[in-house]
Amino acid sequence: MLAKIHVTLKNGVLDPQGKAIEHALSNMGFDGVDAARQGKYFELDLAETDREKAMKNIEAMCRKLIANTVIENYSIELE
Amino acid sequence: MLAKIHVTLKNGVLDPQGKAIEHALSNMGFDGVDAARQGKYFELDLAETDREKAMKNIEAMCRKLIANTVIENYSIELE
Repeated sequence: MLAKIHVTLKNGVLDPQGKAIEHALSNMGFDGVDAARQGKYFELDLAETDREKAMKNIEAMCRKLIANTVIENYSIELE
Repeated sequence: MLAKIHVTLKNGVLDPQGKAIEHALSNMGFDGVDAARQGKYFELDLAETDREKAMKNIEAMCRKLIANTVIENYSIELE
């Protein structure tokens, strides 16, 4: 089973990488970008075939390792 | 218009971050993760309302700034 995980900064947390991208795009002549945010994306191949168990497992991985839940949100899709 | 961009390493390119996550998960007792890959995720708010123009614009941004097309693939979703 393939798990796709998105980790993004919570609202209100400063995103210097996103700001840098915004400024770089504007300096390169790309107008009309009102905001840019950078997050992380993970793909995990899992041996587990039970969706519910897999979801529970991945939530634990996100909380304990993949996301910093103080400043980041995570979302999980299973395929 | 919101653009969601995923940037992932091309097949065959070494992914040390993904390997580190694999090993860390296994050391923490999470079994059954056959492979982990890390990519990047971007969200851009665009003033453009024409989907076709927006797509063309974002492709140019990806090629010139956001992705390193020598080693990375990018995919774009518009919302």
